[in-house]
Amino acid sequence: MSERKLIMLPGPTNVPDRVMKAMTKPIISHRSVEFRRLFEEVEEGLRYVFQTKNDVYVLTASGTGGVECAINNVVSPGDNVVIPTFGVFSERAKDQVLRRGGMPIELTIEWGEAPTVERIREALEGREIKAILIVYNETSTGVIVRDLPKIGEAAKDSGALLIVDAISVLGGDKLPIDEWNVDVCVTGSQKCLACPPGLSMISVSERAWEVIEKTPARSYYFDLIEAKKHKVEKETPFTPALPLYYALNEALKIVKEEGLKKRIERHAICAKAFYEAIEAIGLKPFPKAESVRSNTVIAINAPQGVNVSEVLKLMDEKYGVVIAGGMGKLKRSMFRIGCMGMISQEEVMITINALERALNDVGFRLKLGEGIKAARSTFSRHA
Amino acid sequence: MSERKLIMLPGPTNVPDRVMKAMTKPIISHRSVEFRRLFEEVEEGLRYVFQTKNDVYVLTASGTGGVECAINNVVSPGDNVVIPTFGVFSERAKDQVLRRGGMPIELTIEWGEAPTVERIREALEGREIKAILIVYNETSTGVIVRDLPKIGEAAKDSGALLIVDAISVLGGDKLPIDEWNVDVCVTGSQKCLACPPGLSMISVSERAWEVIEKTPARSYYFDLIEAKKHKVEKETPFTPALPLYYALNEALKIVKEEGLKKRIERHAICAKAFYEAIEAIGLKPFPKAESVRSNTVIAINAPQGVNVSEVLKLMDEKYGVVIAGGMGKLKRSMFRIGCMGMISQEEVMITINALERALNDVGFRLKLGEGIKAARSTFSRHA
Repeated sequence: MSERKLIMLPGPTNVPDRVMKAMTKPIISHRSVEFRRLFEEVEEGLRYVFQTKNDVYVLTASGTGGVECAINNVVSPGDNVVIPTFGVFSERAKDQVLRRGGMPIELTIEWGEAPTVERIREALEGREIKAILIVYNETSTGVIVRDLPKIGEAAKDSGALLIVDAISVLGGDKLPIDEWNVDVCVTGSQKCLACPPGLSMISVSERAWEVIEKTPARSYYFDLIEAKKHKVEKETPFTPALPLYYALNEALKIVKEEGLKKRIERHAICAKAFYEAIEAIGLKPFPKAESVRSNTVIAINAPQGVNVSEVLKLMDEKYGVVIAGGMGKLKRSMFRIGCMGMISQEEVMITINALERALNDVGFRLKLGEGIKAARSTFSRHA
Repeated sequence: MSERKLIMLPGPTNVPDRVMKAMTKPIISHRSVEFRRLFEEVEEGLRYVFQTKNDVYVLTASGTGGVECAINNVVSPGDNVVIPTFGVFSERAKDQVLRRGGMPIELTIEWGEAPTVERIREALEGREIKAILIVYNETSTGVIVRDLPKIGEAAKDSGALLIVDAISVLGGDKLPIDEWNVDVCVTGSQKCLACPPGLSMISVSERAWEVIEKTPARSYYFDLIEAKKHKVEKETPFTPALPLYYALNEALKIVKEEGLKKRIERHAICAKAFYEAIEAIGLKPFPKAESVRSNTVIAINAPQGVNVSEVLKLMDEKYGVVIAGGMGKLKRSMFRIGCMGMISQEEVMITINALERALNDVGFRLKLGEGIKAARSTFSRHA
């Protein structure tokens, strides 16, 4: 367990040593001056990466907990919520709305495609809609919703709130919360921020607060009104996962040091290298249209006759690179690579090399090195 | 922030270096052989400390999240739940039952006293009760419910389930889950297990499962049925807070190495030393009856005219010992000391000394050293 593998999952990702080390800082009281200083620093770092003046909160929970928090606070039983479903996580969000007693207006979209603003505008017509819930980056299909800024306008025009699940993308692709009219945005620590898993972060707009204050009985653990009350004292309502707070603070400092713009460009170039390498190897990305391909989750169709779990096992055990298979109905027909956080030319090259070799090992016909060559060419064009 | 203070809070507590260091183990996939091994080890360690053959689950959430999980899974809207309230945490649990749509049958008990089996048996009569919810150790008042085993019998006789909030006590005082008929038990990582905060652990009996399977729509994040499904694969439904899993595993190993019996005795002796020292200083424990005084949370009445926050500040900044004040309505009239986890003669002595000196500094009349002397005498009687 001491040998460190290259973690190229769509979360958790590789974590810089600085961030790992931050977890071992001394235990302090979560009702102390020291904690309040940490709370403030984390808040400032989050506002920077969310590009927002809105309130931001940190929850001790995974991303799914963060989405539950958003739904629980905004949606009252009986409320209509427009949800395009196009993968595991958007379907999960729909289920969460149902459990809350909300009425999902589901827009079913073929997996591998992305919802468009036209479909959303259509769904908003002729009825009262409390919120639109968009999974900005479908981790299960490697699809990103490039219409999000337009959907933000549609939400604003209609009076519906816009809830965005940005778990696998915030910090790795464009998402200016205020500029795009995102009312509630959820992300996770273990994705593009390159922090260990265990925290979920959420931003809340003024418009969202107006709704939240009228929402009836909700989860206590995820009650944003409790969080807001404690924020005045720069505290959390419940004992926070302190080591992960330290880690998040360090991870956010790294984001700031690099600069968000540069960080997003880096993700885009690495993604481009992945996609070009994949095509050079003779594989196809799962999302058909180039315009919907994610820069943070690279989803690849497994070629006919190739056993996905065999390839994953070889990559892991023989080449030391951990990537993921598909999810749900795509479990055995897809590879997914995280292009997140610390991602750089080095990780891309090592991953492509391992993928080529593992595919070669299982008898898939390819010219070894073509992927590497294509990726190198991408990087040199963008150097 | 680098100077390490003695953390004598009723959680989080001091964490052994071994446990802190475990957090920096490499990031791994939570769908891997390595994680499954870790999952198994943690499960085994938890079964040992819970003294149970029941299922045990780990949630990425604070203790309040664990209590919400218990309530959400067991209580259906409209269900009667008997809850004795005698402090902040039992009142919070009542609120959580209300938010779930349950009907709390509240037994109001004076703060500083503990519920008795007689009151519980009375409340069980003549109506259908889904569950009894007992806060075994009220962190806000330093009171422990010594009738718990009898309440377990009453629950079994009546057919009601017994839910126990053991957040600030499991691993530090007696709580044989199976022997005492506890159906659902919740604890937190940052208390008597001496692990950092961020995880909540929950055990579920066969009887509880029968109820849980019939409970309607509940929180997705806290859905125990999802957790049970994934347990088959030795996985969690959502990305776990991996570094805290590593830490918990190490903390549980330490419990096993010491032995639970010895660990509980150590807590009891340290508590005795605290109580004898306190009386020697001329202070009074908040719980009147000796029989209800907690061995893990030492609650002390602040003497008339003593400013609690001034004493806390002196202890922290001048003597390097962090203890807590009261909670809720007791905020300014109480000191609370955590007697948890790594607690030993050394920590007790340093804390008593700091308390004596800080009280002396603010002008409280005491003979310096009397507390220390009393505590030393306790330890020598129990050496």
